[in-house]
Amino acid sequence: MLSQEDLIQLFKKTRADTEKICSFLETEDYVVQPIEDVSPPKWHLGHTTWFFEEFVLKQYSPSHKLFDENTAYVFNSYYESVGDKVIRTNRGNLSRPTVAWIYEFRKYITQAMLELLNNRKLDEEALGVIEIGCHHEKQHQELLYTDIKYILGNNPLFPVYNKQFNENLIQKYHREWIEIEEGVYKIGHDSSSFCYDNELAAHKTYLHKYKISNKLVTNAEFLEFMKDGGYQDVLLWHAEAWEWIQEHDINSPFYWHKIDGEWHQYTLQGLGKLNPEAPVTHISYFEAFAYAQWKGMRLPTEEEWEVAQDNFEWGSRWEWTESAYSPYPGYEKPEGALGEYNGKFMVNQKVLRGGSVATSSDHTRHTYRNFFHPHQRWQFTGFRLVNT
Amino acid sequence: MLSQEDLIQLFKKTRADTEKICSFLETEDYVVQPIEDVSPPKWHLGHTTWFFEEFVLKQYSPSHKLFDENTAYVFNSYYESVGDKVIRTNRGNLSRPTVAWIYEFRKYITQAMLELLNNRKLDEEALGVIEIGCHHEKQHQELLYTDIKYILGNNPLFPVYNKQFNENLIQKYHREWIEIEEGVYKIGHDSSSFCYDNELAAHKTYLHKYKISNKLVTNAEFLEFMKDGGYQDVLLWHAEAWEWIQEHDINSPFYWHKIDGEWHQYTLQGLGKLNPEAPVTHISYFEAFAYAQWKGMRLPTEEEWEVAQDNFEWGSRWEWTESAYSPYPGYEKPEGALGEYNGKFMVNQKVLRGGSVATSSDHTRHTYRNFFHPHQRWQFTGFRLVNT
Amino acid sequence: MLSQEDLIQLFKKTRADTEKICSFLETEDYVVQPIEDVSPPKWHLGHTTWFFEEFVLKQYSPSHKLFDENTAYVFNSYYESVGDKVIRTNRGNLSRPTVAWIYEFRKYITQAMLELLNNRKLDEEALGVIEIGCHHEKQHQELLYTDIKYILGNNPLFPVYNKQFNENLIQKYHREWIEIEEGVYKIGHDSSSFCYDNELAAHKTYLHKYKISNKLVTNAEFLEFMKDGGYQDVLLWHAEAWEWIQEHDINSPFYWHKIDGEWHQYTLQGLGKLNPEAPVTHISYFEAFAYAQWKGMRLPTEEEWEVAQDNFEWGSRWEWTESAYSPYPGYEKPEGALGEYNGKFMVNQKVLRGGSVATSSDHTRHTYRNFFHPHQRWQFTGFRLVNT
Amino acid sequence: MLSQEDLIQLFKKTRADTEKICSFLETEDYVVQPIEDVSPPKWHLGHTTWFFEEFVLKQYSPSHKLFDENTAYVFNSYYESVGDKVIRTNRGNLSRPTVAWIYEFRKYITQAMLELLNNRKLDEEALGVIEIGCHHEKQHQELLYTDIKYILGNNPLFPVYNKQFNENLIQKYHREWIEIEEGVYKIGHDSSSFCYDNELAAHKTYLHKYKISNKLVTNAEFLEFMKDGGYQDVLLWHAEAWEWIQEHDINSPFYWHKIDGEWHQYTLQGLGKLNPEAPVTHISYFEAFAYAQWKGMRLPTEEEWEVAQDNFEWGSRWEWTESAYSPYPGYEKPEGALGEYNGKFMVNQKVLRGGSVATSSDHTRHTYRNFFHPHQRWQFTGFRLVNT
Repeated sequence: MLSQEDLIQLFKKTRADTEKICSFLETEDYVVQPIEDVSPPKWHLGHTTWFFEEFVLKQYSPSHKLFDENTAYVFNSYYESVGDKVIRTNRGNLSRPTVAWIYEFRKYITQAMLELLNNRKLDEEALGVIEIGCHHEKQHQELLYTDIKYILGNNPLFPVYNKQFNENLIQKYHREWIEIEEGVYKIGHDSSSFCYDNELAAHKTYLHKYKISNKLVTNAEFLEFMKDGGYQDVLLWHAEAWEWIQEHDINSPFYWHKIDGEWHQYTLQGLGKLNPEAPVTHISYFEAFAYAQWKGMRLPTEEEWEVAQDNFEWGSRWEWTESAYSPYPGYEKPEGALGEYNGKFMVNQKVLRGGSVATSSDHTRHTYRNFFHPHQRWQFTGFRLVNT
Repeated sequence: MLSQEDLIQLFKKTRADTEKICSFLETEDYVVQPIEDVSPPKWHLGHTTWFFEEFVLKQYSPSHKLFDENTAYVFNSYYESVGDKVIRTNRGNLSRPTVAWIYEFRKYITQAMLELLNNRKLDEEALGVIEIGCHHEKQHQELLYTDIKYILGNNPLFPVYNKQFNENLIQKYHREWIEIEEGVYKIGHDSSSFCYDNELAAHKTYLHKYKISNKLVTNAEFLEFMKDGGYQDVLLWHAEAWEWIQEHDINSPFYWHKIDGEWHQYTLQGLGKLNPEAPVTHISYFEAFAYAQWKGMRLPTEEEWEVAQDNFEWGSRWEWTESAYSPYPGYEKPEGALGEYNGKFMVNQKVLRGGSVATSSDHTRHTYRNFFHPHQRWQFTGFRLVNT
Repeated sequence: MLSQEDLIQLFKKTRADTEKICSFLETEDYVVQPIEDVSPPKWHLGHTTWFFEEFVLKQYSPSHKLFDENTAYVFNSYYESVGDKVIRTNRGNLSRPTVAWIYEFRKYITQAMLELLNNRKLDEEALGVIEIGCHHEKQHQELLYTDIKYILGNNPLFPVYNKQFNENLIQKYHREWIEIEEGVYKIGHDSSSFCYDNELAAHKTYLHKYKISNKLVTNAEFLEFMKDGGYQDVLLWHAEAWEWIQEHDINSPFYWHKIDGEWHQYTLQGLGKLNPEAPVTHISYFEAFAYAQWKGMRLPTEEEWEVAQDNFEWGSRWEWTESAYSPYPGYEKPEGALGEYNGKFMVNQKVLRGGSVATSSDHTRHTYRNFFHPHQRWQFTGFRLVNT
Repeated sequence: MLSQEDLIQLFKKTRADTEKICSFLETEDYVVQPIEDVSPPKWHLGHTTWFFEEFVLKQYSPSHKLFDENTAYVFNSYYESVGDKVIRTNRGNLSRPTVAWIYEFRKYITQAMLELLNNRKLDEEALGVIEIGCHHEKQHQELLYTDIKYILGNNPLFPVYNKQFNENLIQKYHREWIEIEEGVYKIGHDSSSFCYDNELAAHKTYLHKYKISNKLVTNAEFLEFMKDGGYQDVLLWHAEAWEWIQEHDINSPFYWHKIDGEWHQYTLQGLGKLNPEAPVTHISYFEAFAYAQWKGMRLPTEEEWEVAQDNFEWGSRWEWTESAYSPYPGYEKPEGALGEYNGKFMVNQKVLRGGSVATSSDHTRHTYRNFFHPHQRWQFTGFRLVNT
């Protein structure tokens, strides 16, 4: 558990980082929601702020005066147990509150939080909720990057977000296969530092012998799959995946564009030529699985990934695993509204491990369990193979 | 036909009026598109400007330099024969070009148009297209009002557009029934002044004797229909209307809200109590028809409306008629892209006559034929009855 | 008005004709409903029988014992004011009651009706309802043909309905243009014989001079339109039509199949080569309109068709007109459930005139107003042109 | 592996059993498809027959003459790699081939198979495919029961299938909790007898200590959950489950009907009062999970179920587990079309264990892995709890 002093630093840095991410935007970029998965940046700014007012200031700061009685519910997301909320698909239809209003709201709440943190000795429960609030905001920082990329990258004008932001970190070394022996291993979070409920309980698992790659699959490798007709061979795909690629006419990773016969990729630096060395990204589980089938290999389970992760570099792509997102043995859902955080998503999703170029540097760890639906591609996803 | 001097005045006033309408907006209000029928205000600003560049400057001003080669197509609407276009439902997903960019675009094109108009004697064809462009922009002024009303009026915060804008013009006089004799009448546009292609040819029609109301149906009258169970009595409704009210749970005119047992209405002045004297508005053809059935009366045909209109006040509500939108005898579709203007909508729509509080003062006339689908309600619609 | 004796003959013939049409079916053919527009033949058999029990025997035969208390509601169609009904799209999901049950039901009701008609002198009201019941069943005879054609013609095995049934009556004479002078004409039903409410009141109308073709557009002529790229030229189509042909990938009349480079047509005689001389059929209003645009001509209004019809042969194709389906001047909706018959469909539909090869010989007349949505094609539709 | 003699017996019994199940149907019952999940019984009859012609007779019986060149493809289901197929949702629209035709087809293929089996010594590969064919047909026997139940149970007349068929086997004993110790266990199929590919490889797994119920949750117990507002408490449900119950207005298990204030249940014996002692059935994973949450317990994983299953009775309900359907360590997809059998469904589905009253007596075993989507309810599902 963090000390109150360390928490103050974490809180200040987190709030500042969020605003830094948005500093590259035009006002109009904060407003739109081109698909349901994407939220308008102004919603993220308001929602992460609402979280502190709702779950911290309302609970632990009796003198706190609400910034605005009527508006806050706009920023509730999925906490069904906490009052009304704006339905998710409607977020991009709201021009008000304005961006300026939301920055005022942020400033007011940040200030109120700092007063609380600086002037009162808080108990463990309160400190715990504030720490969750910081990690919650860090999650939204990652979503801000991916949602901004969607908003700009699906605009026919392909505007640049930030010329300095390099998404494509090259792994220059050769592929090697790390061998892990059969046996009982322990996985899950097992220290007093922060983790989410879904990383608990730490527990034993039995693994059979496997070999896992030290590097991610690259664009060049994925192009081979495409050239070999991978997107056209029904036997490589799950039944639901095949329907999905037919219905949406999928034939390359997301953000790829063939221009005058050459593959280009939209990144936060704008539209440019595809770099064959870079790890493939914006790929669904369905595509990762089909590629593995084509190779005669498979994806790791999340347990295999976690046990082997000390032996390879990770952190630039969220990595798809074969594991469905389920509760660990001994998992307990927290009480109250915060109990809605993770458990209710434990169906029809796949676990991803690692982190990405969009992840706040102190926000991931080797036990972190991210999760998405198998068709989703707007995150900085990637994958590595297991060869048994 | 207008002289070139008069046209310059019309053009300048039209361009200024559009910007006046938008002067009450926040930047964010320009961007959103909550339903397909509504376009973002920034799109209207760009589209009316694109029209002049595409159909006037490109054709008649050889030295004209395009403001931007790549961006203009974003503002094409439905001219299928003129290059690519952004699909209608996608307009609200585009944060770029920005509002500031669009005002630059407007300024540049307004300037280029005025240079053309001031420095060159234009032929009749060119003047005709410019006059159409002005009337086209006036149509979009009306849409700006109704789309802005939708954007603000469907925001849970109910923001005010302009406290001075009074939608509800009261007709204080008593209801009287104007009697029109059976016989052959002439309708349609029959002068050299501007009209749309769909108002031609002027032609004869045979009318049977009828009596038409001198005033519109009011909120108080419509409330009686509601109290009498009008929305629940299947026998009053068209089959498609009944499906529509069931599916969308329709039980009052649009923008009505029952708050603490009392009816309120959102107007461009904000949320307030319903004024029973005001003409009912934001009503579909389906509802107008059901009301007439309940009264044992009917809606006028467009011919009946036009023949009688000298005898009553009109202009605050677009008035639904019983007439389907069809070509007049002798109708001829114009050549080329401008021929896509009206004719291609002549199916599954109903004619509305009159004009509304949102209509530019010099934009309507007694032969004007507006048209909407029978379920649409986001316009300032209303109706009057015929009692045969 | 028919005498009671004539009505008995009409009733007996109508009931027998319906069963004759179904005599070519397998039990399985009675059950399916491939699209919402099509009803299972067993439903038609039950529904036309239910009509006589509900509106005649229940009202005028006090001693009548219901055939089955629980089952009849399955056969209610759209009479919202008469109890429950099975939703339309669900008709093809009901395996019970069986076909054998329905034939028992028919026999029982036919018998009960004949006893009533033979043994009691009925008043005008009762006779009127029975006459409507007969005409109602004749309408369903036509629907039986078209629904059976859909059921068999969309089966990949293309089964034959009846080798003797010739749909394609050739008009061997040359095309001529019948000229009608400008003036006031009278249209609508104007005798004491049977008609539907929508053919009333007979009334005057003003027509401008026009020339109408003495024959229908043929397959050969329609093929020229197709060869000239008619389905690809956006300027020929209504906006809604263009969306419809894109969405459904429409590029020929319905039931046409290109096999080894040659056009074939499914008819109730099975699959065969397209006869170029036959009038084109299974065509939507949208396609008829686009063809007329391409020819530089137009479709007649229903008034033009009715005034000219003495001068040409008609009856093998329902003919699309330009007229939207609206009430005639002086139209009055009948009281009670039978008032739901026609009036509630008077929106978003186009009028068709004439009759078809599937129409019972005594079921059409020159004032008859049929109506369908502009995209519908499963009827034996066709069209003739007006050349002004 | 079965001997050829035993396989002949298995084949004959399987074919006869299928026809026995259908012997209670009317011809019309064979035809309809009320929802996509349900196939028409005549399709099952044809499909299981097509399997033997396609994968056995075409491959191993060179002299085999196809029953019908054109029709067989109608009965392909999901073997994308074997030619055309009729799209699944279209099965209920096909009145042809008729039921009589399909029984002829069955007879012909059964005969040809028996000639092959009786007159030729077949190799292991051929025998293996025939054994799969028999098990495949047994799976369709189960689907026949559940699809017939859907077809009849969703008919408003609630027809009886078979008065002798008792679905509700009561577990009369008290609930006890079987305790299993922590440790490494072996699961998966580990003998030479028949199993599906998804039961392999047999492998080790690590289980933590748990207690599992010796009996299924009953109707009476589930009613307590309902009375306590279980369907209304958002905190008990997965996010996707909550959307699903809202959208489909789910508030009881499937086939339950409240009539005059009392719960009834449709079974294959017809509509009757709900038996509180019977195990709850036709329940989704979502509902089973919510019930477990409400109890403060959880569902077993498939490994926990398999390890404990010797200690309790099972076989009347397919039992939901918490486990997502994934490949076992060492899983290998078979080559060719039969490889499409199981692997391609290993995403977004939950594993069920056990078997049901509709399962052929020799068709299940303790390693059998059934799988459905978490919302599906038309199978005879149920569940037991784990209490850690």
